Amino acid sequence: MGAIRRGEDFLFNQVYDFVVSRIESNEWKEHDKLPSVRQLSVELHVNRLTVLKAYQLLKKHKKVYVKDKVGYYVQPKDTFMLEYPDHPIVSAYVQKNSLSEIQQVQVEYNFSQALIDPNLLPNHYLSEYVKKVFDLYPKVLSTYSTVKGDEELREALADYFIKQYKTVIHADDLLILSGSQQGIHLVAQTFVKARDTVLIERPSYSPAIDTFKARGAQILSVDITPDGYDLNQVEQYMKLYKPRLFYMNPTFHNPTGYTVPTRQRKQLVQLAEQYQCLLVEDDSYHDIYFDHKKPPPPVYTYDFSGTVIYIRSFCKYISPGLRVATIICQSSSHMKTLLSVRALTDNGSPLLNQKIFLHYFSSPRLQQHLEKLRIALQVRKEIMEKELSRTNWNWSSPGGGLNLWVQLPDNLSTDSLLSKAITHSISFVPGQICDPIKKLPSSMRLSYSYANEKQLQQGLQKLIQIAQEND
Amino acid sequence: MGAIRRGEDFLFNQVYDFVVSRIESNEWKEHDKLPSVRQLSVELHVNRLTVLKAYQLLKKHKKVYVKDKVGYYVQPKDTFMLEYPDHPIVSAYVQKNSLSEIQQVQVEYNFSQALIDPNLLPNHYLSEYVKKVFDLYPKVLSTYSTVKGDEELREALADYFIKQYKTVIHADDLLILSGSQQGIHLVAQTFVKARDTVLIERPSYSPAIDTFKARGAQILSVDITPDGYDLNQVEQYMKLYKPRLFYMNPTFHNPTGYTVPTRQRKQLVQLAEQYQCLLVEDDSYHDIYFDHKKPPPPVYTYDFSGTVIYIRSFCKYISPGLRVATIICQSSSHMKTLLSVRALTDNGSPLLNQKIFLHYFSSPRLQQHLEKLRIALQVRKEIMEKELSRTNWNWSSPGGGLNLWVQLPDNLSTDSLLSKAITHSISFVPGQICDPIKKLPSSMRLSYSYANEKQLQQGLQKLIQIAQEND
Repeated sequence: MGAIRRGEDFLFNQVYDFVVSRIESNEWKEHDKLPSVRQLSVELHVNRLTVLKAYQLLKKHKKVYVKDKVGYYVQPKDTFMLEYPDHPIVSAYVQKNSLSEIQQVQVEYNFSQALIDPNLLPNHYLSEYVKKVFDLYPKVLSTYSTVKGDEELREALADYFIKQYKTVIHADDLLILSGSQQGIHLVAQTFVKARDTVLIERPSYSPAIDTFKARGAQILSVDITPDGYDLNQVEQYMKLYKPRLFYMNPTFHNPTGYTVPTRQRKQLVQLAEQYQCLLVEDDSYHDIYFDHKKPPPPVYTYDFSGTVIYIRSFCKYISPGLRVATIICQSSSHMKTLLSVRALTDNGSPLLNQKIFLHYFSSPRLQQHLEKLRIALQVRKEIMEKELSRTNWNWSSPGGGLNLWVQLPDNLSTDSLLSKAITHSISFVPGQICDPIKKLPSSMRLSYSYANEKQLQQGLQKLIQIAQEND
Repeated sequence: MGAIRRGEDFLFNQVYDFVVSRIESNEWKEHDKLPSVRQLSVELHVNRLTVLKAYQLLKKHKKVYVKDKVGYYVQPKDTFMLEYPDHPIVSAYVQKNSLSEIQQVQVEYNFSQALIDPNLLPNHYLSEYVKKVFDLYPKVLSTYSTVKGDEELREALADYFIKQYKTVIHADDLLILSGSQQGIHLVAQTFVKARDTVLIERPSYSPAIDTFKARGAQILSVDITPDGYDLNQVEQYMKLYKPRLFYMNPTFHNPTGYTVPTRQRKQLVQLAEQYQCLLVEDDSYHDIYFDHKKPPPPVYTYDFSGTVIYIRSFCKYISPGLRVATIICQSSSHMKTLLSVRALTDNGSPLLNQKIFLHYFSSPRLQQHLEKLRIALQVRKEIMEKELSRTNWNWSSPGGGLNLWVQLPDNLSTDSLLSKAITHSISFVPGQICDPIKKLPSSMRLSYSYANEKQLQQGLQKLIQIAQEND
């Protein structure tokens, strides 16, 4: 595959996007006839061949269909955007959120939510901290936080990171978020424009894929394996496609649970600096490690030039109801842009939530909670693995995180397994949803964090039985 | 002004945006030489004249400058984006937030924040409600809300709206927001694509202007006066430019305080239906009315076809620290898209904040608080007006809201007045910032809600003195 020829690509993409935006906005409705190639080429002042090529790709992507040999018509919605081309670059303005569609289904055996069972969370302690917060800050509810976030919290977090990783950062390098999804969205809003290239791991966290696609980015996927990335592939992509950023999740990766080794972390920072590609490091499971084996330090700790934007979430395992996460961004110019975009997004996170979080985060009870939580989650993981060991399915046992990434035999489609599982009140995430290029038909993500021990055992047994009936 | 010629406009805008995005992303740095007209025309496969015209407009917009007669160079940042063309349509990808830049300055006499003095807010009562919430929902902090928002809160709000305006809506028509700015941003994300036309009042709420500009919209401004809009102008614009939406703030309008009369509200809905233009009604000051005179019912109450998206904020006058607002959207297909975009934005508002708000909102104490607050704000408004009455400045006394929109003599620039005022620890919002086309050099917005009575009196006296020294 050669380098992109920008000029040709430019006009071609314009025409493609022009049509897609008309269809998505419903200006051109299902089964409407598109303008003829000649008409549109005149209207948009482009070559007929460019329009024809765009129409052909639109057809391939099932956005339009051909009737009477020459007419192009808008494809009805039910088949729209379901297929992606067999090509590492996919481009689309998609306002889609595949994962949330699955999670809207209520089931008894929930293996699709990478959330922690509320019974494992410190509900009682937190209510106490809330009362403390009101004694300390009687006007907390009538005060706006700054857009960047509460200074006291940013200082406490900066101290924590310095102690953990022995690298210096400042409270000013932190921006408080209402959850890590907001961080991904903010980064996409701030640094990615339509048609920019973005690197994403394959597989990856599906709402991140959807976020960058909705921004109109061209997605280029980088394989992740238990050994990390193929850095030659990464370098090649950075060189050829000049991506704006690489969205990565190198620690107990979602969905696979893989962890990128320390050596690669350092090399990645060097590559990213050399090719001026931002590294966006999403780190939501850092503290959920098993067997007392801490993961390697985050990629940002190897960065001294502001190349890494680090998104660290705590809320999953402390208090999902508070929704507190943070960005570390050591480039002051990037931070300035992030703040300006964040202000327009929601003016910053509520102060109350930040103050409650601060007081719990700074207390010794947090460490006690985490130790117990790690053990409880490891037990649940092992129950799931024990059930799976009765099958011929494959997975690589993760050192942390909330998920198993399971490979079924090639003849089994996890997409059709899900349809059947849901009728038995079982949900999981089919691999296709985690794949930027919508393949991986026989993989699935099973979360062991939300269901309790009994549900894990019973649900897995049922799921395996359903799969084997179809084998 | 004739209709837009789409084909020409299309290519021309592509080239313009191509250059702007390179500059904004810092790929092309200050004082870098741009590709020659010939080079870029070859590279982008467009006519040389198209590139030349784009370069000329870029020069006019101070994004590039010309040196050695023929070379185009990137304009340094300090003069970048400060000026806009003398044309009702402005197009730019701007990640900018003019208002927050002023508000970062700490001053003693703050007339730039349209926020309510925390001393006027129900701090004590709210802490009590918080404790109640933890008794009622012990697991509130370990539970995610749904993306749409807490059902109990949506039902309570739907009941409230039905009682207030006698029009039926359902809890399912509501989407809970973390503040009204998030609503504006969400609507822009969901319904506006680059180069779509958007109608905005002139003047308007500056972060809304910045949000739609950042989205790449073409902004077309609709004058607002004490009598409302010129509906012929609105119809003409809807007919000619097919705007996606009209962002409006028809009740105690920010910054002017004007209220659009009932008759126009009905007509607007008809026009919007006819021309398929969404009406986005931002209603943040509805309950802040003076002399017991309630404003007319919201525009959404006249809509039976899902043409209005209504953003209602409560947090300003109940608890800015909670950040709770809501959208009413009666079109189920629009609601579906809003939800899908919202999920990618931040997965929904924190549950804790919604539950605290619910219990206060449903209590009789809220009405008592509001009655007192209205009186306190009216007193502050009158103090401000009394000081202003000693000048030859003009304003139209508002029936509600938090701001006065003041016209100074033509020879006075509020922009330069602000620079001087800030050295005397006084801030306000110069009219230019509230103007989509960046004119209105002698207007300013003075908020009377944040400063206390003494600060209002002293600060205004100082401000008038500074202005008169320069007159």
